Amino acid sequence: MKKIAVFTSGGDAPGMNACIRAIVRGAAYHGVEVYGIVRGYNGMIKGDIIPLNSQSVSNIIQRGGTILKSARSKEFMTAEGRKKAYDKLQELGIEGLVAIGGNGTFTGAEIFYNEYKIPTVGAPGTIDNDLYGTDYTIGFDTAVNTALDAVDKIRDTADSHDRVFFIEVMGRDSGYIAIQCAIAGGAESVMIPENLTSVDEIAAILQKGFDKKKSSSIVIVAEGDEEGNAQIVAKNIKDKMDENLDIRVTTLGHIQRGGIPTAYDRILASRLGLGALEGLLRGEKNVMAGVVNNQLIYTPFHDTITKKKPVSEDLIRMVEILSS
Amino acid sequence: MKKIAVFTSGGDAPGMNACIRAIVRGAAYHGVEVYGIVRGYNGMIKGDIIPLNSQSVSNIIQRGGTILKSARSKEFMTAEGRKKAYDKLQELGIEGLVAIGGNGTFTGAEIFYNEYKIPTVGAPGTIDNDLYGTDYTIGFDTAVNTALDAVDKIRDTADSHDRVFFIEVMGRDSGYIAIQCAIAGGAESVMIPENLTSVDEIAAILQKGFDKKKSSSIVIVAEGDEEGNAQIVAKNIKDKMDENLDIRVTTLGHIQRGGIPTAYDRILASRLGLGALEGLLRGEKNVMAGVVNNQLIYTPFHDTITKKKPVSEDLIRMVEILSS
Amino acid sequence: MKKIAVFTSGGDAPGMNACIRAIVRGAAYHGVEVYGIVRGYNGMIKGDIIPLNSQSVSNIIQRGGTILKSARSKEFMTAEGRKKAYDKLQELGIEGLVAIGGNGTFTGAEIFYNEYKIPTVGAPGTIDNDLYGTDYTIGFDTAVNTALDAVDKIRDTADSHDRVFFIEVMGRDSGYIAIQCAIAGGAESVMIPENLTSVDEIAAILQKGFDKKKSSSIVIVAEGDEEGNAQIVAKNIKDKMDENLDIRVTTLGHIQRGGIPTAYDRILASRLGLGALEGLLRGEKNVMAGVVNNQLIYTPFHDTITKKKPVSEDLIRMVEILSS
Amino acid sequence: MKKIAVFTSGGDAPGMNACIRAIVRGAAYHGVEVYGIVRGYNGMIKGDIIPLNSQSVSNIIQRGGTILKSARSKEFMTAEGRKKAYDKLQELGIEGLVAIGGNGTFTGAEIFYNEYKIPTVGAPGTIDNDLYGTDYTIGFDTAVNTALDAVDKIRDTADSHDRVFFIEVMGRDSGYIAIQCAIAGGAESVMIPENLTSVDEIAAILQKGFDKKKSSSIVIVAEGDEEGNAQIVAKNIKDKMDENLDIRVTTLGHIQRGGIPTAYDRILASRLGLGALEGLLRGEKNVMAGVVNNQLIYTPFHDTITKKKPVSEDLIRMVEILSS
Repeated sequence: MKKIAVFTSGGDAPGMNACIRAIVRGAAYHGVEVYGIVRGYNGMIKGDIIPLNSQSVSNIIQRGGTILKSARSKEFMTAEGRKKAYDKLQELGIEGLVAIGGNGTFTGAEIFYNEYKIPTVGAPGTIDNDLYGTDYTIGFDTAVNTALDAVDKIRDTADSHDRVFFIEVMGRDSGYIAIQCAIAGGAESVMIPENLTSVDEIAAILQKGFDKKKSSSIVIVAEGDEEGNAQIVAKNIKDKMDENLDIRVTTLGHIQRGGIPTAYDRILASRLGLGALEGLLRGEKNVMAGVVNNQLIYTPFHDTITKKKPVSEDLIRMVEILSS
Repeated sequence: MKKIAVFTSGGDAPGMNACIRAIVRGAAYHGVEVYGIVRGYNGMIKGDIIPLNSQSVSNIIQRGGTILKSARSKEFMTAEGRKKAYDKLQELGIEGLVAIGGNGTFTGAEIFYNEYKIPTVGAPGTIDNDLYGTDYTIGFDTAVNTALDAVDKIRDTADSHDRVFFIEVMGRDSGYIAIQCAIAGGAESVMIPENLTSVDEIAAILQKGFDKKKSSSIVIVAEGDEEGNAQIVAKNIKDKMDENLDIRVTTLGHIQRGGIPTAYDRILASRLGLGALEGLLRGEKNVMAGVVNNQLIYTPFHDTITKKKPVSEDLIRMVEILSS
Repeated sequence: MKKIAVFTSGGDAPGMNACIRAIVRGAAYHGVEVYGIVRGYNGMIKGDIIPLNSQSVSNIIQRGGTILKSARSKEFMTAEGRKKAYDKLQELGIEGLVAIGGNGTFTGAEIFYNEYKIPTVGAPGTIDNDLYGTDYTIGFDTAVNTALDAVDKIRDTADSHDRVFFIEVMGRDSGYIAIQCAIAGGAESVMIPENLTSVDEIAAILQKGFDKKKSSSIVIVAEGDEEGNAQIVAKNIKDKMDENLDIRVTTLGHIQRGGIPTAYDRILASRLGLGALEGLLRGEKNVMAGVVNNQLIYTPFHDTITKKKPVSEDLIRMVEILSS
Repeated sequence: MKKIAVFTSGGDAPGMNACIRAIVRGAAYHGVEVYGIVRGYNGMIKGDIIPLNSQSVSNIIQRGGTILKSARSKEFMTAEGRKKAYDKLQELGIEGLVAIGGNGTFTGAEIFYNEYKIPTVGAPGTIDNDLYGTDYTIGFDTAVNTALDAVDKIRDTADSHDRVFFIEVMGRDSGYIAIQCAIAGGAESVMIPENLTSVDEIAAILQKGFDKKKSSSIVIVAEGDEEGNAQIVAKNIKDKMDENLDIRVTTLGHIQRGGIPTAYDRILASRLGLGALEGLLRGEKNVMAGVVNNQLIYTPFHDTITKKKPVSEDLIRMVEILSS
C-alpha cells in the first residue's frame, strides 16, 4: 500500500487532530503517501482531497476540532453518492482509508467496504464513548473534564444559595459522560439511559439529603435519559417536592465538544491513529482499532455498530455510596 | 467603631470570598471586631451571625461562591423584617455593616440605613457589572473569562462543522458580559439590551460572512436583549435565511456564576473590601466603595441603584470593525 | 471490623482527598467507624487522630493536597516509634488501617504489619506512577495534565522565538510523567531513567529538526535521567551544537503536585479508596489495592515496593515516530 | 497613508496575536494595505515581509505567541542595519509602521524614526507591565493569571506538608507581576525591585506566621529583586531560621510567557492595536498608544522608555494587611 487517505466524520471530538497527526506522521515514517479528505464523506464525493505531510500537522496536537472538518452526508447514503466517492478515490490512486468517527461513520465505512473493497480501518472518535471494541473513545476524557469543570463551578453557586441543580450532559444513547461526571463531581444522583431511575427515586434521594441538612444537591442527567431531558425531569420533580425548593437547570450543550484535548485524549488519539494506520498497512480491513485492557485490538465495524458496551455496574454503585 | 458585621446578598459572584477575607483581615489589622451574617438579610433577621477572625478566612481567596452564603429575603422587604434585623444587630452591639452585593442588596441597605442609621458601606459584587459608581464589579472579570472559554470551545466545533452558533450569556439588563465576550471571542456580532440590533441586521452580517466564505459564525446574545433570548433570536433568524444553514444555540447559564476567581477579581475584591471597611471606619455611610479610573471612590447607594452606567460606544464599534 | 483509620503519607498527590472521601463515605455505608490520622506516621505516633464522618469530607473531592496532611517520619523508622504508634491505635481501638501513599508509605506499612498485625490495605497515591500493582496511581493523570499545560505554553514562546527548550518534569526514578508529556506535548525527544538516551543522540535529533526547518524544539527530561537534570543536559548539548542555538531550560517543579484533580484521578481515587476499604473489611491485609486492566486487584505491599513497572516500549517508539 | 506594516519584537506576550489581528482588520476597514514583518527588526533588514489580509488573522485571537514571530536584532543596532531596513521598506512602498513590543522595541523605533522619519506608532506588548504611558501592557494580565494558577497549586502542596515556598516570577526590573500574584495568591510576603525588603524582614514575617500556627507560607520573589533571585533569598533566609524549617523554591520561568490570552488581554490588545493603527492614520508618529484611566492616549517613545511607572503603594500596603 503506497497511498492512503484519512478523514473525520460525524460529530467532532477533541483529539481528532492528534489522531490525524499520528496517521500522517506514521505514514511519513513508513514511506506511505497520505491525503486528507475534507468534510468526511461529502468531501470524498466532491473530491475535496488534499495531500498532507509532516509539516501539515505541525502544532495541531493541542487543538480542538478537526483540521479536516466534518459533516454528515446524505448523498453518501445513496449508491450513486458512494459510486462518485469511489471514482474520486480511484482517480487519485488511493488504496486504503483511515476513518475517524463514530457509529454513523463506521456504518458508512462498512457499506462502502462491502461494495468497493477499499481497505478501511477506523479510529473511534466521539465524545460519547458509546462504541464497542474500545474501552475509551477519542474525545471522551476531554468532554468529561469539560463537563466536570462546569459541575465544579455550579457547585460553588449551588452551595452559596442552597439550591438543587439538574445538569444535563451529552449522551443521546449512553450515560458514559453522565456517570463519570456524577462520580467525579460528587453528584447526589445520576440519570442515564442504561438504567431505570424514576423521578420518585430521585425525589427520595434529594429528600434524604435535606433531612441530613445538605445545603445543596446536584443531579446529572444524560440528555437521552428515558425520563426526559433535564428540563423535563426537573419540572416533574419540582411537582413532587416542597414548593420552596429552589431548583435550577443547566444544559451544558456544545461546550462539551470543543476545547484543548487532555493528555489522555492526545495519547489515546495518537495510539489509535498509529494503530489504525499500521493495521491498515499490515492488511487489516473493515475493522476499528481500539484499546481494550491497554492492548491495541481490531474489531469488525459490524460489531462496533451493533454490539452494546454497558456502563459498569461498579460505577453506578459508586454514585450511590459516595454521595451518602 | 469597635464591632462590625459583613454579609453577602443577591446572586453570588466569584471574588466575594476574597472580599470577605479583606474585610476580616482589615478589621483585625485595625483592631475592630468582625462578625459574619449568614445568608444576607435572612440571616440578619434570624440572628444567624457568627464571629470571624483572620483564621476563619484562611485559604478562601481562591474559592468561588461565598462562605457566608447568600439568599434573597422577602421578609426584609417588610418593616417588621427590618425591625427584627435591627434588633438582632443591637443585641450583638454591631455598629457598622459592610454589604457585598448588587442592586437589590443596596436597595435594601439604603432603606435600612434611612430607618435605623446603622452606618453601612457596600462593595459591588455581581457578575453583571451593571452598577454605577465603579468601573468593574467583583466577579465580572471571572464571568467574562468563563464565558469566553466556552466561546473558544464552541468555536472549535463551529469551525469543524461550518455552523452558526448563538451563544447566550448572562446579563438581564446589561450587555457588559456580552460585549466583552464578543470582542475577546472574535464573534461576528453581539446583541445587547443597551443597543438596538434587529434580527435583520444580524442576518445581513451573517450573510456577508458567507459571501466572504467564512465557514462559521458566532453571535453573542445577552439574555436580556430586546429581541429575545438566544433561542428566540436564532429561530427568527433561521426563518429569514437559507434553510440549509446549520444554526445552533447554547445557553451558558449558571457556570458563569462560579469558579476560581481570576487575579483581577481577587485584587479588585481585596481592594474594594478593604476600601469599604476603611471607609466605614472613617465615617462613610450609605455609600458603595468603587474603583473608577484606578481611584477608590464612594458613591451614595441611591446613585448606584438609579444611575445607569453605559456600555462604551468604543467597544460596540470594535465588534463591528474586528469581525470584518 | 468496627473501627478503622485512614492516613496519607509521603508526597501529596491530587486526588488524595477524593480517596479519603471514598473511604469515609464507604465506611459510613458499611456501618464502620472511621478516624483520620493527621500527618501520616507522625500523627500516628503523637496520637493526632480525629473522628471523621460523611460531613467531614463534603466538598473536598475537587481539592488538591490532602486534608489529613502528610509528612515524612523518621521516628516511625525506629522500633520505639512504631511501638508508640501501635499503642495510640490500641487506645482508640482501631482495628484496621487504610494507608494512602507511595513506596515509602508501604515500606513502613509492611514493617508495621509484620510487627503488630494490624490489618492494613494501601491505596496508591503518588504523582510518579512508579508503583507495581496498578496501571495508574492517584495524582498521575493530574500531574501529567499540569505539566502538559506548561509544555503547551512554552511551545507558544518557543515557536515565536525559534528556540529549543529543555523542560524538566518530576520523576526521580521513573519516566512516566516525562513520556506521557512528551507524546501529548508533541515533543521532539524525551530523556527518562528507564532508557539510555545519550546527549549525542538528542543533539542528532535536534540537528535533524533544524535541517527540516523546524523552527523550535522541545525536549522533556525526567528529573532522574541518568544524563543529569535538564540544566546539565542542556549545557552538555549546547557544547556540542551551533553556538547560535538559543537553548532555554524550564524546571516545572512543585506545580506538578498540586491543583484540582482531573476527572480520571477523582474516579480512580474513589474506586481505589472504596476498593481498599472494602478489601480491608473482607479480610485483605498487607496489600495495596490497584486497578490493572480495569479490574480491582490486591498486590502484597512487598511486591509493590520491590517489583518494577516498566514504561511501555510502545510509548517510547511513539515519541520517535510522531515527532518526525 | 495607503500602505503600512506591523511587526512584533522583543519577548513575546499573550495577546500579541489579538493586537496583530486588530491592526490588520482595522486596516481593511479603513482601506489601507497592510504587511507583516517577520521576526521584528531582523525581518525588516532581510525583507522578510508578507502581505496580510482579514483572512490571514482568522482564528488567532485566542493563540499565545505571535504569528509574526519575534527576535532580538543586533544588526538593527548598527546604522548599516537600519539603512538596509529602510531600503526594504522603501522597496515595498511602506509609509507607516506599527511596532508591538516593549522597551527595546521602542528604543529601536525611536532611533529609526529620528533617522528616516517613517511614521511609527507603538503598541505596548510585554508581560512585565513596565512601560510608562499605559496602565497595563498586553500580556500582563495573562502572565499574572498563569503565575497565580501556579501559586494556587503550590499552596495545595505547601499546606499539606507545612512548608515555606519561595516562588520566583518574572520581572527583571519591575515587580508588577510579583505584587499582583502576592495579593491574589494570598502570599505572606513579596520581594520586588521597587521596594527594599531585607531578608531579615521576611524572616520576621515568617516567624510571626509560625507563632500564629500558620502551617505554610508563600513568599513571591520578582526575579530582579535587589536581594537576589528566589534561590539566593531562600538560602539566606534558611540560614537565619530554625533548621527544621522545610523551605522549597520554585522558579516559574517561561510558562509565564505563553498560553491562551485572558479576556482582558484580548480586549486590551484589540483596543491598543486599533488605537495604534488609527493614530498612525491620523498622523501620530514616534509615540506609543496606551490606555490610562480607560482613555486611549499617545505617549512619545522617549517618555515610555525613560520614565518610570511606579508600583502602587496601595498594593504594597495590601500585601501586608491581608496576609496578617
